Amino acid sequence: MTYYIAEIDIMPLKELLDPQGKAVNSGLKKLDIQNVEDVRVGKHITLQFNDASNKQEAEEKTELACKKLLANPVIESYQYMVKEVEE
Amino acid sequence: MTYYIAEIDIMPLKELLDPQGKAVNSGLKKLDIQNVEDVRVGKHITLQFNDASNKQEAEEKTELACKKLLANPVIESYQYMVKEVEE
Repeated sequence: MTYYIAEIDIMPLKELLDPQGKAVNSGLKKLDIQNVEDVRVGKHITLQFNDASNKQEAEEKTELACKKLLANPVIESYQYMVKEVEE
Repeated sequence: MTYYIAEIDIMPLKELLDPQGKAVNSGLKKLDIQNVEDVRVGKHITLQFNDASNKQEAEEKTELACKKLLANPVIESYQYMVKEVEE
């Protein structure tokens, strides 16, 4: 059986403040990990498509899911990678 | 200048229920995206190390950060990739 797995990253837009990232950065300082910049915290989502007939179909479904459900384009950007798995 | 960027994925352990994943799955059905299985929602974190002297040092700091701060090993697993950026 062939199926497709989409690995999606949804991140806060670069222009926006990221309060979770700021919190992580102060936590890192307490661990004595200094000089870390640009900490961003977003979401990682995996989807497994069991009935997509090819990679393109899985990519189209992933694009639709990101656009309509998973990411809020006002504050987030997304990127994804679809991989084929043979079983 | 050379710096290092760590891309970290923190996901709920496979054995555990993932209520956010379940919610995403019902949202997908409403978009008429059927037959999606194994939806998991986790975190994606990026860190930028400005003063790491080599890739190994950046990896060690990332490992420490994951273990002590970012991931809860009781319910989450993590994986990361450190890449070198020349500027």
